[in-house]
Amino acid sequence: MRVQTDGLRSGEREARATIVDVAAAAGVSRQTVSNVLNRPDRVAAPTLERVQREIDRLGFTPHVSAQQLRRQRASAFGFEVNPSGHRRMGHILDEFLVELTVAAPSDAGHLVAFAPDPDDVLTAYRKTLTSGIVDGFVLADTRTDDPRPPWLIEQRVPFVSFGRVWDQPELTRWVDVDGGAGVRQAVHHLATSGYSRIGWLGWPAGSNVGDDRRRGWAEGLRELGLDVDAPAEESVQDLDQATEAAESLVTRLLAQGRGDVAVVCASDLLALGVMRAVRHVGLVPGVDVGVVGFDDTEVAAALQLTSVRQPVAEAARTAWGLLLDPELEGPVLLDPDLTVRASSVRDPTTAAGGP
Amino acid sequence: MRVQTDGLRSGEREARATIVDVAAAAGVSRQTVSNVLNRPDRVAAPTLERVQREIDRLGFTPHVSAQQLRRQRASAFGFEVNPSGHRRMGHILDEFLVELTVAAPSDAGHLVAFAPDPDDVLTAYRKTLTSGIVDGFVLADTRTDDPRPPWLIEQRVPFVSFGRVWDQPELTRWVDVDGGAGVRQAVHHLATSGYSRIGWLGWPAGSNVGDDRRRGWAEGLRELGLDVDAPAEESVQDLDQATEAAESLVTRLLAQGRGDVAVVCASDLLALGVMRAVRHVGLVPGVDVGVVGFDDTEVAAALQLTSVRQPVAEAARTAWGLLLDPELEGPVLLDPDLTVRASSVRDPTTAAGGP
Repeated sequence: MRVQTDGLRSGEREARATIVDVAAAAGVSRQTVSNVLNRPDRVAAPTLERVQREIDRLGFTPHVSAQQLRRQRASAFGFEVNPSGHRRMGHILDEFLVELTVAAPSDAGHLVAFAPDPDDVLTAYRKTLTSGIVDGFVLADTRTDDPRPPWLIEQRVPFVSFGRVWDQPELTRWVDVDGGAGVRQAVHHLATSGYSRIGWLGWPAGSNVGDDRRRGWAEGLRELGLDVDAPAEESVQDLDQATEAAESLVTRLLAQGRGDVAVVCASDLLALGVMRAVRHVGLVPGVDVGVVGFDDTEVAAALQLTSVRQPVAEAARTAWGLLLDPELEGPVLLDPDLTVRASSVRDPTTAAGGP
Repeated sequence: MRVQTDGLRSGEREARATIVDVAAAAGVSRQTVSNVLNRPDRVAAPTLERVQREIDRLGFTPHVSAQQLRRQRASAFGFEVNPSGHRRMGHILDEFLVELTVAAPSDAGHLVAFAPDPDDVLTAYRKTLTSGIVDGFVLADTRTDDPRPPWLIEQRVPFVSFGRVWDQPELTRWVDVDGGAGVRQAVHHLATSGYSRIGWLGWPAGSNVGDDRRRGWAEGLRELGLDVDAPAEESVQDLDQATEAAESLVTRLLAQGRGDVAVVCASDLLALGVMRAVRHVGLVPGVDVGVVGFDDTEVAAALQLTSVRQPVAEAARTAWGLLLDPELEGPVLLDPDLTVRASSVRDPTTAAGGP
């Protein structure tokens, strides 16, 4: 029995046994052979053994070849779920995972979620890869000295990253949001709203993301001809101290004279500290002190807090493009938007008050 | 060449060509054969053709048999990502997806995320299943007339559900949280805190989850000897009207006399409406009007709102148990906890104030 295959690269091939051959040889239906392959627990032992014997004898394999298998099935990519990152990043990672799933090309992408041991993430990447279930990875929550990009490059595994690979500038397979541009936009918005002393509440220097956002604040002030040294600035390592840091920051800004005072924050959680501090000293956010957060979380919506919004759905679509579309070149840096609410509007009649 | 295999159900088998046989026959290294199988684009065309010819001639397949393949690889389960559900349920679904990934047994479970067309979810289930990438599904966000459980049962596909399958009471492969018990606990907590008129802000009758939570409120009142008809009750279809509904509810409760007034809500977003309404009429949450939400979202933490917390990590572990542990019998109904904050504590010195 010889058949001609339509492979472009191979010539004439040995015919391979089909599921019909196995069914005929074992005297069972095609469905039973399928059950033996896929749900052996549902097949009676003697039948299972008989079919299995014919499968082995005929050299039947459900896939013609691994190469054809690869052509048939959609690609799958691994996505690391990291609970501390998912908590720390105010649901941006959750939102990214949802949008990445939604944006998956219907016949070209599955997403496999896996959770590494935080002390040894590479083992989980290696295991997920060798399990054969994924063809590559989508990284998020990139950081300095991130062991993942160099390892993936060394293993020649395809990947794309949501977030810059800060210490490998030659790498271009990433999409990120220009946080500095978002903060600069917030500074300009506050100036337009009539605030002239605009402080910064961020994280200690040394985090790429935090430094990038702070740079946007300083640039915004310079562009407006404002003195970067005059406004107050605070940083918070421990989020439990956000309210205290916010209170001292607001107090210092107010000491330069009432009114015209605003604070831009590196996150909505820091902005929450400012909102509380403003209320503690008997003032009203927006009316007395402008406040802007970052990430436009549900907390921002609940507090009527103006916040910088990352275009997460666009980032997810871009990530798939960088993985699958050879025409799309990286890196891609997306501009965030500003969601304006009562906390940065001086006239309280133009927006609803906070809770 | 004959070798003895260690299969329990099959006897002596034909020896199968190994990767070493193919490499020797084609005169290439083992790594090259591996590349042909996994990364054919990296292999020069003449080599690719030669190796492919030997693979076909020797009947080599990288997997000994589909059955052994199944024994080797971990199971994979599909999880539907449904953006509207993820938005509506205040991140409980995001949290469940994260915890489900974390709780996956390291050698027995992968999680494949997929996003169906909302108008035709079954097609995506069918496609994900026939792609061969998953062995079953974890459902969430179950609803009345949910087409998924009957279809999966008919297809004999393993699945477990986070959330009761309300209209198939005979089905036991679910884990859920006893929302009614959580609300009853909230009512008892409010009574202990000194509130004696406890209203309810929920959704219109007819949603299983909402009705279950409301039942907990009514039961709690009865257990305390309080009259269910005396306190006010409101429901909100459109969340944009939550503040208005909350305001009329609070007004009605206060009309029965000041003090001792509290409202339990079916969600944190409804509780946010109550918090705003309380402040709008010049009162202080907790001190003047007790407020309790449901789901303990980041919004609850930000607003200092007492809220019912679902044990999502435990639900995720239980879901894996129901899928993989034949000893564990379903259904499993878990008790939620109450996270107590300033909004339900009458003495403001015992808890920090809201923002």
